[in-house]
Amino acid sequence: MTLTGFSEEQLDVREAITKICSKFPDDYWAQHDESGEYPHELHAALAKDGWIGIALPESLGGAGLGISEATMMLQAISQSGAGMAGAQSVHANVYATQPVAKFASPEQQSRMLPRLIGGEWKACFGVTEPSTGLETLKLKTLATRDGDHYSITGQKIWISSAQVASKMILLARTTPLDAVKKPSEGLSLFFIDFDTNAPGLEIRKIKKMGGRAVDANEVFFDNYRVPADTLIGEEGQGFKIVLHGMNSERCLLAGEALGLGYVALERASKYASERVVFGRPIGQNQGVQHPLAAAYMNLEAAKLATYHAAKLYDLSGKDSTISSQAVGVACNSAKYLAAEAAFSACERAVSDCER
Amino acid sequence: MTLTGFSEEQLDVREAITKICSKFPDDYWAQHDESGEYPHELHAALAKDGWIGIALPESLGGAGLGISEATMMLQAISQSGAGMAGAQSVHANVYATQPVAKFASPEQQSRMLPRLIGGEWKACFGVTEPSTGLETLKLKTLATRDGDHYSITGQKIWISSAQVASKMILLARTTPLDAVKKPSEGLSLFFIDFDTNAPGLEIRKIKKMGGRAVDANEVFFDNYRVPADTLIGEEGQGFKIVLHGMNSERCLLAGEALGLGYVALERASKYASERVVFGRPIGQNQGVQHPLAAAYMNLEAAKLATYHAAKLYDLSGKDSTISSQAVGVACNSAKYLAAEAAFSACERAVSDCER
Amino acid sequence: MTLTGFSEEQLDVREAITKICSKFPDDYWAQHDESGEYPHELHAALAKDGWIGIALPESLGGAGLGISEATMMLQAISQSGAGMAGAQSVHANVYATQPVAKFASPEQQSRMLPRLIGGEWKACFGVTEPSTGLETLKLKTLATRDGDHYSITGQKIWISSAQVASKMILLARTTPLDAVKKPSEGLSLFFIDFDTNAPGLEIRKIKKMGGRAVDANEVFFDNYRVPADTLIGEEGQGFKIVLHGMNSERCLLAGEALGLGYVALERASKYASERVVFGRPIGQNQGVQHPLAAAYMNLEAAKLATYHAAKLYDLSGKDSTISSQAVGVACNSAKYLAAEAAFSACERAVSDCER
Amino acid sequence: MTLTGFSEEQLDVREAITKICSKFPDDYWAQHDESGEYPHELHAALAKDGWIGIALPESLGGAGLGISEATMMLQAISQSGAGMAGAQSVHANVYATQPVAKFASPEQQSRMLPRLIGGEWKACFGVTEPSTGLETLKLKTLATRDGDHYSITGQKIWISSAQVASKMILLARTTPLDAVKKPSEGLSLFFIDFDTNAPGLEIRKIKKMGGRAVDANEVFFDNYRVPADTLIGEEGQGFKIVLHGMNSERCLLAGEALGLGYVALERASKYASERVVFGRPIGQNQGVQHPLAAAYMNLEAAKLATYHAAKLYDLSGKDSTISSQAVGVACNSAKYLAAEAAFSACERAVSDCER
Repeated sequence: MTLTGFSEEQLDVREAITKICSKFPDDYWAQHDESGEYPHELHAALAKDGWIGIALPESLGGAGLGISEATMMLQAISQSGAGMAGAQSVHANVYATQPVAKFASPEQQSRMLPRLIGGEWKACFGVTEPSTGLETLKLKTLATRDGDHYSITGQKIWISSAQVASKMILLARTTPLDAVKKPSEGLSLFFIDFDTNAPGLEIRKIKKMGGRAVDANEVFFDNYRVPADTLIGEEGQGFKIVLHGMNSERCLLAGEALGLGYVALERASKYASERVVFGRPIGQNQGVQHPLAAAYMNLEAAKLATYHAAKLYDLSGKDSTISSQAVGVACNSAKYLAAEAAFSACERAVSDCER
Repeated sequence: MTLTGFSEEQLDVREAITKICSKFPDDYWAQHDESGEYPHELHAALAKDGWIGIALPESLGGAGLGISEATMMLQAISQSGAGMAGAQSVHANVYATQPVAKFASPEQQSRMLPRLIGGEWKACFGVTEPSTGLETLKLKTLATRDGDHYSITGQKIWISSAQVASKMILLARTTPLDAVKKPSEGLSLFFIDFDTNAPGLEIRKIKKMGGRAVDANEVFFDNYRVPADTLIGEEGQGFKIVLHGMNSERCLLAGEALGLGYVALERASKYASERVVFGRPIGQNQGVQHPLAAAYMNLEAAKLATYHAAKLYDLSGKDSTISSQAVGVACNSAKYLAAEAAFSACERAVSDCER
Repeated sequence: MTLTGFSEEQLDVREAITKICSKFPDDYWAQHDESGEYPHELHAALAKDGWIGIALPESLGGAGLGISEATMMLQAISQSGAGMAGAQSVHANVYATQPVAKFASPEQQSRMLPRLIGGEWKACFGVTEPSTGLETLKLKTLATRDGDHYSITGQKIWISSAQVASKMILLARTTPLDAVKKPSEGLSLFFIDFDTNAPGLEIRKIKKMGGRAVDANEVFFDNYRVPADTLIGEEGQGFKIVLHGMNSERCLLAGEALGLGYVALERASKYASERVVFGRPIGQNQGVQHPLAAAYMNLEAAKLATYHAAKLYDLSGKDSTISSQAVGVACNSAKYLAAEAAFSACERAVSDCER
Repeated sequence: MTLTGFSEEQLDVREAITKICSKFPDDYWAQHDESGEYPHELHAALAKDGWIGIALPESLGGAGLGISEATMMLQAISQSGAGMAGAQSVHANVYATQPVAKFASPEQQSRMLPRLIGGEWKACFGVTEPSTGLETLKLKTLATRDGDHYSITGQKIWISSAQVASKMILLARTTPLDAVKKPSEGLSLFFIDFDTNAPGLEIRKIKKMGGRAVDANEVFFDNYRVPADTLIGEEGQGFKIVLHGMNSERCLLAGEALGLGYVALERASKYASERVVFGRPIGQNQGVQHPLAAAYMNLEAAKLATYHAAKLYDLSGKDSTISSQAVGVACNSAKYLAAEAAFSACERAVSDCER
């Protein structure tokens, strides 16, 4: 434990997840990348052992662990060779369910979460809209109250796993932008049925150059009706609710990037020790060694930054000396550092393989 | 504590050292850089409060702390504006005395260490020789036994603080290279008087472009006689003894680099918020913000790597699961990461100040 | 002319090629990348106007221009949006035919080149073998003389366009490695029918992640018989013959990379001026401007280096003050600089598009 | 000629300048860097052979060459080991005299230039003011007409060579900023006596960390009187006049940076072939070779960009197809590319020397 800086729980998570993922070899992922088919078998295997609910309450069937452990899980999935596609296939179920666990009523929780945790349902996360990628406060999709229902109209884009999801955690506007006092008000969060057979809901798959095992989609709502009791928390508080979870997602993404970087490095190192050119393995050349060694050190540093950030995130609710600003700085830094280190590791791994 | 990841002891060290260093403003260091005068006043102030012996036994007047705390001390000195020159002015006294504390006899320790800890003596470290900078095993300086004395002949180079030191921790060959079984044998460690008035010892100052407050020197021994009881540990074991401490020095150097990087960044940020061009502070330009923000994140990651390595080093004697190889990887990584992050932070800080 | 540093001929080439390529829009290339179908229409359009033979003798239907102009042609193809796939679809026909034009007999030339120039035939280039990617002197494929035929046995890999080629320019060993005086001897060059219906020739397509419009292949020869008059130049001189053309290929590859970098930059700039976030085009942010501006400057420098190298190559036959070593340094530098500049431009273009 | 891309004239300049500079060895520059003494001997040697006036009219004693040749001269000075200090010692005399040659009356020219060209006088260039480093239009120094004199009041900063100059080319405001129609109006250019014994002129040397052979200064004018016939061109047109020369200075600075980069690389390569560690020259390690090779290629590309820009600058007056915007893009790119390539070459050269 001391050596790695990880807790026993984190190490247990890593071992268990690595074991599950070992049943999904490179061929599995190559085929799914080509066919664009969702990795249902991995999702089922993870759900079977309770991992989809890693960071959800034990009372609902979850494991009751924190983002520190969830980050470790996603790193282990990515690092197994499943890559970003593998990690993204469960990402939303782990992350976008956090607001439900924190802000939904007990009745809603027991209605919404157990079947997600059990793997019967899959959820997608509906935030991003065309032209408002980074400007959440400018979201236009409207949810209009109509008796005991809401009627939803608008467009979402880059929605992952919508082809296989039966539920959506949706951020929509319940008060028009020009009718709110502060721009952070007027948005609300819903946990809705995502039923493409029902009237008013259409999806369109977006072609991608990679990571094709997880579909990306455009989603079109046209007076799509959902019951009023799908509202999570108070009406108009959706932005704050979602914002709360942004830092946790940054940690998860950092973990996924780390996994990718480490596995690229492992394979490049293996290749470098096997590939013989001019009479000796190319790994004996400093031109190969030095870039890989630097990539390793940068990954190690990014790893420390990532799990430090996750720890701060997990403690921030309990320890009042940890400001939300400090958590934000740590989580954003982790995401940046891990992404840079992983990109560089992958790029160098491929360059070496060309030699 | 949670937020920074530092222990109470580390935070106490940082506070105390920062307070002492605050009495040595930029002018002090600018003057000493120009004159090349050693910062005796800083050394005295640190010694007065017991900090020279931060990592030496309490029984001899030291503080009995570890490399984790010593690294913090050197970072704080560097970060105060004293820079590498300030840190290097005490570096050898902290680091090169470690082998004495670990391998000298109790009698030797009580003879050698208290007056160093008290600040009466200063020590320099005599390892490097011309053309054998990285090849410690090729050292040529000979210490020949002659009754109850050794007679030393040879040349050392890049010896810091030799102008002000009254003691030297010396690595010299007691068996010629061609007479040992393994190249790692035949070297011995001595703690000797460094008396330029005695016959057989001459020093020559090397001109430097910066960091001039700490002198660098060539040292010439010509049948310089020292008593036999200056030998530390067993004859022929000097290489192993010195090697033991290399990883600790890597941590100290990483800490010093970090301090330099952070203070450069602080000053660049302050300048960027004050310097107005085209009607607004240059710090409002992304061209200034982004490089500084990236430098900050890289420093944070290197800091986590550095104190993780120092922790492993301190624990490695007590915890058998921590291999010396793992400590070596961590300490070398820390030195690399901190040096890169600090160099980049300094370079960007200066670039920004030119705008 | 003065402004760009290009000759009138180069500018004419650029204009003509750009016009032809404008008939092949992004959709065309996206479809071919997905289907893996060879861009026969582009090849036909280029052949129709005589461009396949840009650097082949006018007497045989070629344009009689140099590598300076051929590099410009390939840059223009790549820059049109056809990318590396578009450029590589004609690359071998331009480059691998050079040795035929220089070392084949007049009879051979008139037999081999006109139908390639006219577009009736396509050629592939057969050098690389498994595990001997960079070690041309270690090639194992054997061509054994048998009366008025050679019998070819061995394996080639990474052979582009083999699925559509009816001819191959083949480098094979006519004397075993252990029977030659110098390792550079014993290899011979052939211009052979590439007939997968004939006995002894099989090809297997390799899956690729991109650039799929040009197929890559494994090629297996098993006593594949070719007439003896397919030998180009003297037996045993194949390595020297091929080496002669390496520097020209470096220029072509540099041009192709440049085209890719420039078009990425053009599209990123366009996107940056159209994409509005937080109320203004992202191109008004220094965080977007500065990386793109630096990418532009690096492309410009690489462009000057590339066409300087091509000029040296073209002149090297005529001007004895230009050593082959100087040409090699210039062409290798051009390839490195263009590849780095293009990779960086593409990476930044994509990063920006994510904002 | 073909090989380098340089003209005979440029090669002659390089040869002549290199020969002159060979009389000023490293010791000379080390001593002047330490003492801060101006390199009068180099200036005299260059003036003796007519090189100060390299880009000034032949009718006045100049050589009548262009910026292409002047850039080559400054690169050769820098590359000789004289570095930026050596180049900057003549920089202003070459560059800041250009507006005099272009906009002064014939009478003024014959009064002002021959003794500068002959080396009897040295000139400094007075533009930059505190807090208006990049905002030339905000300059505050006032030149108030008073009969047949102007009275100058204000402050300049970072004025190089003011300690040794007897003339200053001064940009000052003749109409207050709030009284002009366009901000680019109201500034005027003067060629004045720079006499610190006269009332109203004081200078104060600024301490520097390097390049000390050329002094940097604060300059204080307090009703310093100069004759009215020191005005160059029309009153109020000073900004346009100065702007005209900015692109030429960018070329000169690029050349100076290139010289620094090349000489750093030459010395690092030499050191790498001589310095033996672990039994062989460190230059046989890819860890040393590759960074130096990349530095070389980047310098070569920057060199091509620099002399392409200088050529465009020289032709821009004669060829109407070369827009001033194109010249600006080329010259700014050259300055950026050369500075980056040189910084990187110097940094790598020093890193290698530490091994």
